[in-house]
Amino acid sequence: MPPLFISLEGIDGSGKSTQTQALVEWLRAQGRDPLRTREPGGSDGAEEIRRLLVEGNPDRWSAETEILLFTAARRDHLERTIRPALAAGRDVVTDRFADSTRVYQGATRGELRGLVDRIHAEAIGVEPDLTLILDMDPELALSRGLARDSGEDRFEDFGLAFQQKLRAGFQALAEEAPGRCHLVDASAEPDSVARALAQIVASHLTQ
Amino acid sequence: MPPLFISLEGIDGSGKSTQTQALVEWLRAQGRDPLRTREPGGSDGAEEIRRLLVEGNPDRWSAETEILLFTAARRDHLERTIRPALAAGRDVVTDRFADSTRVYQGATRGELRGLVDRIHAEAIGVEPDLTLILDMDPELALSRGLARDSGEDRFEDFGLAFQQKLRAGFQALAEEAPGRCHLVDASAEPDSVARALAQIVASHLTQ
Repeated sequence: MPPLFISLEGIDGSGKSTQTQALVEWLRAQGRDPLRTREPGGSDGAEEIRRLLVEGNPDRWSAETEILLFTAARRDHLERTIRPALAAGRDVVTDRFADSTRVYQGATRGELRGLVDRIHAEAIGVEPDLTLILDMDPELALSRGLARDSGEDRFEDFGLAFQQKLRAGFQALAEEAPGRCHLVDASAEPDSVARALAQIVASHLTQ
Repeated sequence: MPPLFISLEGIDGSGKSTQTQALVEWLRAQGRDPLRTREPGGSDGAEEIRRLLVEGNPDRWSAETEILLFTAARRDHLERTIRPALAAGRDVVTDRFADSTRVYQGATRGELRGLVDRIHAEAIGVEPDLTLILDMDPELALSRGLARDSGEDRFEDFGLAFQQKLRAGFQALAEEAPGRCHLVDASAEPDSVARALAQIVASHLTQ
């Protein structure tokens, strides 16, 4: 059975990290050998670019420069981590991929979505086989997100109106790419969300 | 008289740094207020990206990732340094700009030149008013370049065959864009090269 490339997406505090781990454990229980990774980051070089993006003043980069830096990190992640794992027959489960750039830099500033897509087409050119979008009321997600103390929460500092735009952006993406993207209600108990995600992945494993 | 945006280009060791300084001094002597800058770098953010590019193992990034990182640094340099200076009526003299990416990442690996140009068109979209290309025999330039001890000489480590490809790439660029690019023999004495450059700039100031 060919390896699957799966991304988890959603607003801050929607449980991506927990659900990425749960999905990796479920895949292992199916006898598979998944690689867990994340963006921005996921390779040595991409982690260095991540530090430029998540540390320091949130206004230090323009949205256009951010798009280029995220795409540079993604290219390194793809070359050094994702492609080698898939080539070795391993599933890849990543906490965020290109949809995060489409929504964070593109959807929240509508005029930049085209730029995100064109730079992606030039420099990345691939999509996950399957994208699981954790959908949640931003008020609930924000309270969970702010409860974490990651030290890298600049994306969580922008407030509720911004998170609402993000949620709408992810919902719109799910409509744009219904074959790849699955919108999942993430407000339920984590175990229940994990079962819903596993069921979607299971249907892809038997295709 | 409107401000001029001038770039100096050429292979490593061709004297760009010396000639950039000489040109800035000449512009001052004309009663103008030039800003001297350089790439990669030239703004706080771009200098941080520069460190990712010039430090560490030369193979740490693929050519494609390098193109994205150089373009991210250039976007920041353009937004934070070049455009504000031009808007304030100051000439800008930069030691390297987009032509370096065209030649270092593009011309030396022919299949990537298109990618460099398309990412540039999407994210930068401007060219200098005037580009002065310092043309020199790579053997002479390499001996001068290696004599320096900048600690950032990864681009000088690739040897003579690589420098010869770079020279040919810059010569081809000068033919591609004859209105903007001027190829100048940089093997002469520095004072003589400086006079040649000043003469070209002077003809643009009186246009």
